[in-house]
This record gives sequence, C-alpha cells and structure tokens, in this order.
Amino acid sequence: MDYEEFRTRGKEMVDYVVDYLQSIEERPVYPSVEPGYLRHLIPESAPEQPHSFEEVMKDVERVVMPGITHWHSPHFHAYFPTGNSVPGMLGDMLSNAISCIGFSWAASPACTELETVMLDWLGKMLNLPHQFLAGTNGEGGGVLQSTASEATLVGLLAARRKKVLHIQADTPDLEERMIMTKLVAYMSDQSHSSVERAGLIGGITMRKLPSDSQLSLRGETLKQAIEEDKAAGLIPFFLCATLGTTASCAFDSILELGPICNSEKVWMHIDAAYAGSAFICPEFRPLLNGVEFADSFNFNPHKWLLVNFDCSAMWVKKRSDLIGAFKVDPLYLKHEHQDSGLITDYRHWGIPLGRRFRSLKMWFVFRMFGIKGLQEHIRKQVNLAHEFEGLLLQDKRFEIASDVVLGLVCFRLKGSNDLNEMLIKRINAGRKIHMVPCNLQDKFVLRFAVCAATTESKHIHYAWQIIKELATELLDEGYQ
Amino acid sequence: MDYEEFRTRGKEMVDYVVDYLQSIEERPVYPSVEPGYLRHLIPESAPEQPHSFEEVMKDVERVVMPGITHWHSPHFHAYFPTGNSVPGMLGDMLSNAISCIGFSWAASPACTELETVMLDWLGKMLNLPHQFLAGTNGEGGGVLQSTASEATLVGLLAARRKKVLHIQADTPDLEERMIMTKLVAYMSDQSHSSVERAGLIGGITMRKLPSDSQLSLRGETLKQAIEEDKAAGLIPFFLCATLGTTASCAFDSILELGPICNSEKVWMHIDAAYAGSAFICPEFRPLLNGVEFADSFNFNPHKWLLVNFDCSAMWVKKRSDLIGAFKVDPLYLKHEHQDSGLITDYRHWGIPLGRRFRSLKMWFVFRMFGIKGLQEHIRKQVNLAHEFEGLLLQDKRFEIASDVVLGLVCFRLKGSNDLNEMLIKRINAGRKIHMVPCNLQDKFVLRFAVCAATTESKHIHYAWQIIKELATELLDEGYQ
Repeated sequence: MDYEEFRTRGKEMVDYVVDYLQSIEERPVYPSVEPGYLRHLIPESAPEQPHSFEEVMKDVERVVMPGITHWHSPHFHAYFPTGNSVPGMLGDMLSNAISCIGFSWAASPACTELETVMLDWLGKMLNLPHQFLAGTNGEGGGVLQSTASEATLVGLLAARRKKVLHIQADTPDLEERMIMTKLVAYMSDQSHSSVERAGLIGGITMRKLPSDSQLSLRGETLKQAIEEDKAAGLIPFFLCATLGTTASCAFDSILELGPICNSEKVWMHIDAAYAGSAFICPEFRPLLNGVEFADSFNFNPHKWLLVNFDCSAMWVKKRSDLIGAFKVDPLYLKHEHQDSGLITDYRHWGIPLGRRFRSLKMWFVFRMFGIKGLQEHIRKQVNLAHEFEGLLLQDKRFEIASDVVLGLVCFRLKGSNDLNEMLIKRINAGRKIHMVPCNLQDKFVLRFAVCAATTESKHIHYAWQIIKELATELLDEGYQ
Repeated sequence: MDYEEFRTRGKEMVDYVVDYLQSIEERPVYPSVEPGYLRHLIPESAPEQPHSFEEVMKDVERVVMPGITHWHSPHFHAYFPTGNSVPGMLGDMLSNAISCIGFSWAASPACTELETVMLDWLGKMLNLPHQFLAGTNGEGGGVLQSTASEATLVGLLAARRKKVLHIQADTPDLEERMIMTKLVAYMSDQSHSSVERAGLIGGITMRKLPSDSQLSLRGETLKQAIEEDKAAGLIPFFLCATLGTTASCAFDSILELGPICNSEKVWMHIDAAYAGSAFICPEFRPLLNGVEFADSFNFNPHKWLLVNFDCSAMWVKKRSDLIGAFKVDPLYLKHEHQDSGLITDYRHWGIPLGRRFRSLKMWFVFRMFGIKGLQEHIRKQVNLAHEFEGLLLQDKRFEIASDVVLGLVCFRLKGSNDLNEMLIKRINAGRKIHMVPCNLQDKFVLRFAVCAATTESKHIHYAWQIIKELATELLDEGYQ
C-alpha cells in the first residue's frame, strides 16, 4: 500500500469536491437518465489490470454525475435535507484514515468514549432531561445508530424484551414466543414507513392509530386503543410518537401521550428524525416538551445538523434496557474492562457489530460551527420556509396544507388531486427544481423543503417563479 | 456554507492522513488509556462560538490518538482485518461530497445502479452462480448491507416471511404470529454471535448445532436436527452456514448442508464475512463450492478487500424473497419508475431507509487495484500467515490449534488454558503487537490474524520474537 499516492490524489479529489459543490447549481438538480442507463456505460466486469486515478475520475463525470440527484443543489427541495459540511467531510476523512471498528471499548477506546461524550454534548444542546445523559454515573446514555429506522427498531426490540421479562417475572413458564403473539405496538397513520417495518421485523402486531385534523396523535386516541386491546386480551407495550412527521412535519402530542404510556407501562419512543435538530434553538425547544415521559428518543443530525450521513442519535433512559435486548458475548470480543461497569460496549446497543468512528464528524461539526453557527443554520432555513409560505399566501390559487413550523411547506393548488399531481410532474420534468409529493387526509399535496445549506432567498424566489408559471400553464390548459 | 475552506483544510487533512498512516508503526498499537479517560480531556459541553480547524486538529493528537487501537498498524493482529486503502478513501471522499441518500432509484439513480453493477462485478470475481447476479434480466441480485450482522438478519427475515407465506398458502387462517412460534432456525456452535442475535431480533427459535472435530458443521448433524424438530411439530426454515468462522476460520460443509436445505425447503444463508474476499483467487474458490445451493450469500469487502468500512456485500437468488419481507410504500417515496420492473428500490432490501453511496468506493478500489492487485493482496497475506505458522511449527512448545487456510493462525502453548491466558495478557500489556484469544472446544487459543495491508515479513518475525520471548518468560516463572 503506497499511502504517499493519497497525498497527490487526495488533494486532487479535494479540488474536485470543492469545484463540484461550488458549481452544483449549474447542473440539472434531477437527472434525465432512464432506468438501466449506467450498466451500458461501463464494462461488464472489473478490470484485470489497475486503472489510473485519471481514468476513474474521467468516468465520474461520464458515468456517475449524469445519474445523480443533487441533494446539495440549492434547487433541491425534495424529501428532507441531509447534512453536508466542511467540518463533516473533514471529520469523516479522518475517520476513514483511522478506520477502526468500534464494536467494543477495547477495539478502540477513543471511538467509544468520544461517541458517549458527543451524545452528551448533543443531549445538552437539546436540553434533554438529565436521565438521558451518560454523565459519569447515569443510568441512561446515547448511541449512534445508522438511521432512524434502526433506532425505532432498536427501541421496539428493547421494549419487547422488557415487557417479556416483566411478564415472565410473574409467570416464568410462559414462553417468549407465546407472549409475543399477544403484544401490540402503536404508531399513528402519519408515522414513518419504517415504524410499520419495525413491527414486521420484530414480529409483533403494530396498530396504526388515526391522527387528528392537525395530523397529530392525541392522548385520547391512544387511551382508547389501549383499553380495547387490553379488553381483547392483548398486551400493549410500545408507542412510536413522532415529532415532525415525514409527510408534513406534524407533531404528536407527547405531553398527552407520555403520561398514558408511563402509567400503562408502554415504552414511548420518540422519532424526531428531521425536527430534532431544531430543538437546539430555544424558540423551538418547547416542541420537545414531554420528552421527559419517553423511554427512548431519536433524531438524525445527518438530516438537518450539517453532519454527513450516517449519524442518527438515540438516547435511552435506562441503557440496561437496550443492552438486555441483544447481549451475546463470545470470547473473541471479551476484554479486561468489559465487566467493570466503567465502559460501554456499543455492540450491545444495536444491530450491527461493526461500527464506524462516526462521532469524529460530530465533534468537528459541533466545534467548527459552534452552537451559535448551528442555530443560525436552522433559523435561516426556517425563515426561508416562511418566506416561501409568504409568497404562496399572496397567490389565491394556492393553499397551505399544514402549518409551517420548521423548514417544510406543504401546499397545493385549490383544485383536484389530479391537478396537483400534474403540477408536480411538470415541476420535476423541468429539472430546474426538485420536489416530492405527499398524501394528507386523501389530498395530494406538494412538499417544499428547504434542504441545501447554500439555499438562499433568491433560490426560494426562483422556485416560486417556476411553480407559479407551471400552475398558470396548467390552469390555462383547463385542468382544475 | 463556505466550501472554499475545504480546499485548504481538506488538503491539510490529506497531509495529516498520509503522515498518520506512514508513521503508524511508531505508535503503540494498543492504547494505554483507562476507561473514562476521554471525558476529562474535553469540555462538558459543545462550544457556543466556533473553534478553528487548528484547534480541533491539536485536540485530535491530544484527545483522540491516545485512545486509538491502531487497526492499520502492521503490528495489529487482532480480530480480522478491516479495509483501508487509497482508492477506498478517495471514493468515500467523493461519496461524502455528493452525499445523496439512495433509498430509491429516483433519490439518485447512479447510487442505485452503480451498486447493482458493482455487486455483479464482485459476484463475477467470485464466480458466483449466475442466478445471484442481477445481469439485465435475472431474478437475483446483490445489495450492500452495513455489516454481516445485518445481512444475516435480513436473510433470516426473508426466510421467515417466505415460510409463513408458504404455510398460509395451505392454511390461510393461520396467523403469522402463531406460525412464528413453530419456526426453528439453525446455526453451528462456531457461528458468529450475530447469528444468535438475528434469532433474538426476529423472535424465532435459533438452535445451535455441534460442529465436528474440525469445527465444521456437517450434513448429518443438520439432518438429524431437522428430523427431531419436525417430529416435535416444529417447522425448520433457516440455516446460517459459515465459511471462515470468526474464532478459527473453519468452514462448514455447504456441499453436504446445501442439498439437505434445498430438499427440506430450509433457506440456506452463507456467512463468509472474512473468508469471502479470498474467493477471488482461483486457488481458494473451491472453498465456496456448494454456494449454488444457497438462497443468500454474504461477505464483507470492508474486511479483507481493501474497501473502507462499511461495505457488506449480499446476494440473493430471488430478490422478490427479500423485497417481500419489508415492503411498505408511502407516497413521498413513490416515483414514476417504481413499478416498471426496470429499477431497484434498495429501501426494500434491508433495514435502514437511508443509504450512503457506498458503491463508489468499491468502484474506485476494483479499478485502481484491478482484480490482479486484489488477488496479490490476498495471496500476500495468506503467505504471511503460513510464514508465521512455519515459525511456530519450529518451536515444540507451541501447537497449531486449527488448520491455517487463509490469513489467520490459531495456536497455543502446550499447557493449561491459564498459561495461554497469561501469555496473551502479557502480549497485549506490552502494546507492541495486539491480538485477541478465542475458545476452541474448551481450549483457550491465541489468534494471530494478518491484518494491515502494510504488514510485511519483518512484522511477522517481530511478532513471533515477542511471543516467543514472553512464552519463555512465563515458562521460566513456572507456569504450565
């Protein structure tokens, strides 16, 4: 291995990266390739002999770039943002160089310990209740998962295990598999698809509860479901509440749901994948009120906090709940400190054994932006969303489909679902901006998310201009 | 976001990375920090105001490096190798810059399509049966998971779903949860801990079968277990066979197990996490004979094929089996091509929704090394393992504990388990080389893995010298 080559090639790549990101606006934000386009552009097999870096980089432009949806273009308004920043990339370069696998404390103590402390830093930024922090002696603590999907699944599995143990404490002969057939978990009709999948994976019944007119899950709804299920001989054990739903950034009422979960011994997991980042701003922190009732809480710094994917932060009130769900201990992973109570072996906290050194990029991001810089980023994007909302409100042909709380604006043309479906098709076909739709209470709705960190007021106006013109075009053609 | 800053800082980081990797031998391979060391070296909270890059980098040396287990030191012989290479790091830098999230084809077509083609390239390198390749029209195909743990779990969940559907075809009223209570999966006593965990997560009974004197799971053992379980009213549905076990790099007899699985309709998943990379060399490919019987196959290019973590390659014969296990389809993820049959939406192939652009680093590695370069890397490391074996065999105080097939040597001092435990403690306390032990049929055994790509013959001799001297010291002190 000639690492010296990296000194030259790495710097050439740095230049390519900066050039790409600085000129990203000149590329169509959404590609025009057809399915299967790539296979025919490259050989059928890997080469026998090495290719040069120049050859590969030529193919990056020829083969890869034409098929990229440019998530960091300021014209990208689809899905939710994903983080990309100078400190994030720097931290991850270092992580790749060290390239340790942090499954246990001993496998690289710094990898484990920096993760624990970064989760404490981040928890403090969010003003999480102290029970969720590892501190030096706490029962709780944080861990990085890859995605919110994984965090939800891990929460559900921990809750499943806890409930099974609780029941077996009274009736030791009752087998886990038989108990599982009686378990029931709850989500709302606005929860992310991964919550339903967590139920499938964990092999338990997941009941989808109706949200209210504000797309919020309310306490009364949960209470009624729990009573019905208990009466039917089932055992409620888990709720996934959402702060900032994917479709419309709606908020479940955790202040109502929490006390019910606590008194019914139902594990409350909070999924704030997107919205969580905003809670570092005091003005948005009230949205998190009620987290004190939760057993686990998760959000994705890789979404809105300028940390590159993957980085999904999860906290639990009792880490023994998580660890108990997974613990299997072969000799080749044992080490002298493992039973000391002093260390964390993160392999017991999630599904994968191998773990990348992800907290490095968090550390770089937190320090090089400072809390102030991160807050400014959030505030700027929320303001841009409100700016877009303001433009929309001036045009009577449009309506806002749900409250604009953070960086997402859900809207539609007053008219049929077909009309709105046609509108987004034309928007995306133009490839000048990119958006995705959602379905809110049987209405086809357009989602406008402020995504790239480089999005400015002028991009909001540009997008609005395109949307307005296409709407006019459609209405002129007689669609309604 | 001022990306221009990356032009300067990125290049400084490149220099730091090269300097680190080139001088890595001068650092103690295993750190001497005590649990909790890191927390006291940094502030309790994130800074309000931004810190400079220089300040952060100063702390990398002060805070992080003292706590690193240096996996890429040529003196690192613990666990198994993990990939780190110039092309791997370059590809990942580009992936961070593009920073797209590849959950669906539309979310970034290149991200999905390059992954499919890279898995085909890699499958061809391994000479996998054509059914596992996506080709242009095949029923099978490959996908990247984060870790082998995840691949095993995904295989088990797909098998579970397939068996449930099969049973419900005959008895539609039988509920999935009730069927699950009857399902039984198999692993060997040498399988990785993640296989047992997959059973815990999937909520099914996992039966651990005894391996033979060569630590290999044999057909007769499986056959007997299946018959017993069927007689007891259970439903066998899944086997995880291992090629290259973690403890000793032993190989299950997939040529015996495969036909039994096929005739009993038991899903055979093969976990070749470490050994799989070697199958690109024709001389090691016979170890994979029998893969034609498998339903799914997995190995980790991030272990031994010079691709940086994470990159775990998984192939299935029928992709519809995988997709069926997870599919949930909200509108915000729908796109125009999704039901065309022409595209792949990888979100249906695994647990996370979000997915990093990981195939880029594979593409860089395959092209910049060429198949020839990758084969040379494998052969060199196997030869180094045999060199170490040769040294051991000359010293009558030691015995080899299992056949040396690839890059791992399992050995022990002839004597008690305590003696060997003491030996590895002293080895690791010296921090000049690093190893971990394993337990083989109640014997405490030392594992010597050839790990870093920069490990040369001189490092093998250096390690042997240390081990020999510490053995002499122990025996002189009267241990036996």
